Amino acid sequence: MIFLIPPIEDLNNPALAARLQHVLDNKTKPVGSLGGLEILARQLGMILKSESPVLRAPQLVVFAADHGLAANGVSAYPSDVTWQMVENFLAGGAAVSVLARQHGIALSVVDCGVMHAFAPRDGLLIRKVAAGTADALHGPAMTPQQCDQALDNGKALLAALPGNVLLLGEMGIGNTSAAALLLARLAQIDIMDCTGAGTGLDQAGIARKTDVLQRVLALHADAREPLDALAAFGGFEIATMVGAILQAASENRIIVVDGFIVSAAVLVASRLAPLVLQRCVFAHRSGERGHVLMLEVLQAQPLLDLQLRLGEGSGAALAWPLLDSACAILREMASFESAGVSRQEG
Amino acid sequence: MIFLIPPIEDLNNPALAARLQHVLDNKTKPVGSLGGLEILARQLGMILKSESPVLRAPQLVVFAADHGLAANGVSAYPSDVTWQMVENFLAGGAAVSVLARQHGIALSVVDCGVMHAFAPRDGLLIRKVAAGTADALHGPAMTPQQCDQALDNGKALLAALPGNVLLLGEMGIGNTSAAALLLARLAQIDIMDCTGAGTGLDQAGIARKTDVLQRVLALHADAREPLDALAAFGGFEIATMVGAILQAASENRIIVVDGFIVSAAVLVASRLAPLVLQRCVFAHRSGERGHVLMLEVLQAQPLLDLQLRLGEGSGAALAWPLLDSACAILREMASFESAGVSRQEG
Repeated sequence: MIFLIPPIEDLNNPALAARLQHVLDNKTKPVGSLGGLEILARQLGMILKSESPVLRAPQLVVFAADHGLAANGVSAYPSDVTWQMVENFLAGGAAVSVLARQHGIALSVVDCGVMHAFAPRDGLLIRKVAAGTADALHGPAMTPQQCDQALDNGKALLAALPGNVLLLGEMGIGNTSAAALLLARLAQIDIMDCTGAGTGLDQAGIARKTDVLQRVLALHADAREPLDALAAFGGFEIATMVGAILQAASENRIIVVDGFIVSAAVLVASRLAPLVLQRCVFAHRSGERGHVLMLEVLQAQPLLDLQLRLGEGSGAALAWPLLDSACAILREMASFESAGVSRQEG
Repeated sequence: MIFLIPPIEDLNNPALAARLQHVLDNKTKPVGSLGGLEILARQLGMILKSESPVLRAPQLVVFAADHGLAANGVSAYPSDVTWQMVENFLAGGAAVSVLARQHGIALSVVDCGVMHAFAPRDGLLIRKVAAGTADALHGPAMTPQQCDQALDNGKALLAALPGNVLLLGEMGIGNTSAAALLLARLAQIDIMDCTGAGTGLDQAGIARKTDVLQRVLALHADAREPLDALAAFGGFEIATMVGAILQAASENRIIVVDGFIVSAAVLVASRLAPLVLQRCVFAHRSGERGHVLMLEVLQAQPLLDLQLRLGEGSGAALAWPLLDSACAILREMASFESAGVSRQEG
C-alpha cells in the first residue's frame, strides 16, 4: 500500500473551548438550555477555530459504485439501480437532490466504480476505478492497487472542492453488505448483529444475506487491518470516501456523516487516523440494523432519529439546517449584557 | 363561560390517505425508507388536503405573560425577565429571533398579560388581559371572564394572521409551573412527575417548587374541567394560545407545537376539541421533566430530541425545515416511472 494519510492536527484547545463556553453561557437563555444545539455549536466552533463560525459553500458529495457481491442476492434491488439513481441524482429527482436544492447545498456525484458508462456532464465526477468490485465471496473485492487508487481519488477530488463543510452520501446496490462486513471485522461484532434489511429485504432475505456475509468473513479471515478489510470487502465508493474523509479532516472541514455506509467509511478512516472524529457531525441514527452499533463504536451522538434508511446523503441534508442554526446562535444571539436581561437569581 | 369553540372538521379521509401513500410509495426510494419524514409528509398532505402541499407564510407567534405564582420562588429567574425577553425577541437577539430569521419565518410577540407597559411597535400585539395573573396559591389565577377574554383574544388574533402554518412559542417566568399543574390535573398524574427544573432550578429549588404546586392543586381541588383548571392555574399566555390553537385548527392550519408549555395549551385545547390533534406537529421532546409524560398523554411522536428546554418557540423553529422537506419530497421527487428506475425484485 502506498496511500499516504494526510496530516491531521489535534483540535483540542482548552482556551478556545473555554471561550466558546463563555460565549454560549452569556447568551440570553438559561445555561445549557439549547441542549444538543449547544454541543454542536461548540464542536463547529472548535473545528473552524472561531467563536463566530461561518459555514461556507457546503458540498454534498454522493459516492457511487457497484458491488460484485450483489450477484449473490444480498439486495432487494438489481445493480442497475445504481446507475439509474446516479442519473436521477443528476436530473434532480432523487430525495437528496430535492433536499440539497431546498437548502442551497451544492450536490455532486462521483462515479467511483459504477457498472455503466456515463456521459460527462456538470455535477458528475468520473473517478471510476473499475466497473464494480469483484465478488468478495470468491476473492478480494479489490486489489491493493485499486484500493490505493480509490483512496487517492477521494483525497484529490476533495482537495479541489470549495467550502468548509463536506456532507457525505453514497449509492451502491449491495453496499449495506460491505458496511456490515467492515463493522463486523473492524469492531469485532457478530455479523448477525450488523446485518439488516438494507433497501428492504424480508426476514428470509436477511437470513440469506447473513449467510453470504458469514462466508465472506470466513474467506477473508486474515484481512484484519483497516485497509486490508476495505480491499477485501469493498466497495469503491467506500474507499473513495475514506480518502475524501481523511483529506477533509486534514483541511479542518466539518464532515457531516449520513447513515450506515458513510459511517463505515468513517470507521475505516478513524482507524487510520482517530483525530478524524473531531470533525465528524453525525446527522442521524438510521433504521438500518447495524447503525446503532456503529454509532456506539464511534461514540457518536447523532442529531436526528427519524428511522431513515435511504442513504444518498439524505440524512446529512436533513440535518444541515441544525448546523446552520448552531452557528447562527453563536454569531447572532444577544448576550445578557447587550440585551439588558436580568440573570439567574441566587 | 361564554367562549365558543369554533367548528373543527374531522380530517379523516381514507381516499386522500391512500393517494398520499401511493404517491410516496412511487417515489424513487425503497418503500418507507424516509421513515419519520414520510409520516410527516402524510400528515401535512392530510391537513392541507393535497398531494402537493405548499407551506405558505409560516407564522411564529410568541405568547407572553406573567404569573402571580412566581412570587413563591418557583422559578430561577425574576418576573422582570418576561418583559426583558419580549424586548429581546423584538430586537432580534433571542434564540427564537435568530432561528426565525434564519428560516424566513414571520415572528410576532403577543403581550397576553405581561407586568410591563410596552411601547407599541411592529411585531408586537398588545392583547393584555391584566398585568400578570393572580397568585394561584391564594385563589384562581384568573377570573372566568379573564379566561374567556384571553381565549377570545387568541381566536381573534389568529384569524387575522396570514399563511397556513402556525408555529407556537411562549415566554413567561413561572409558566412551567402552570403547565405542570395543568398536566397533573387534566391527565391525573402525580405532580412530582410533572415538575422539573424549568429555567434551571437545582434539586432544592425543584423540591420547593413541587411543594408549592402541591398546595396549589389542593386549593383548587374542584377545578377539574379543562377551562376551570386553566382559569385556576393560568396563565394568560396559555389561555390565549388555547384560543389561537382552536382557531388555527378550525382553519386547518398546520400547528407546530414547541415544548412543555405549548404542549400544555394543546392539552387543554384537545380536551375541548380532540380533533385539534390531527393538525399538531410536535417539534421536539424537551429536557423539561414533565414533557415526556405530556407527549405520552397526547400520543405524540416528536421530530427532534435535542434536550432543548428554552421555550420561546425555539424548538418549533428548529424543526421547521423538516416540514418544508416533507412537502418538497411530495412535490418534487421523481417517481420510478418518470425517472426510469427499476423497482424492487421479487
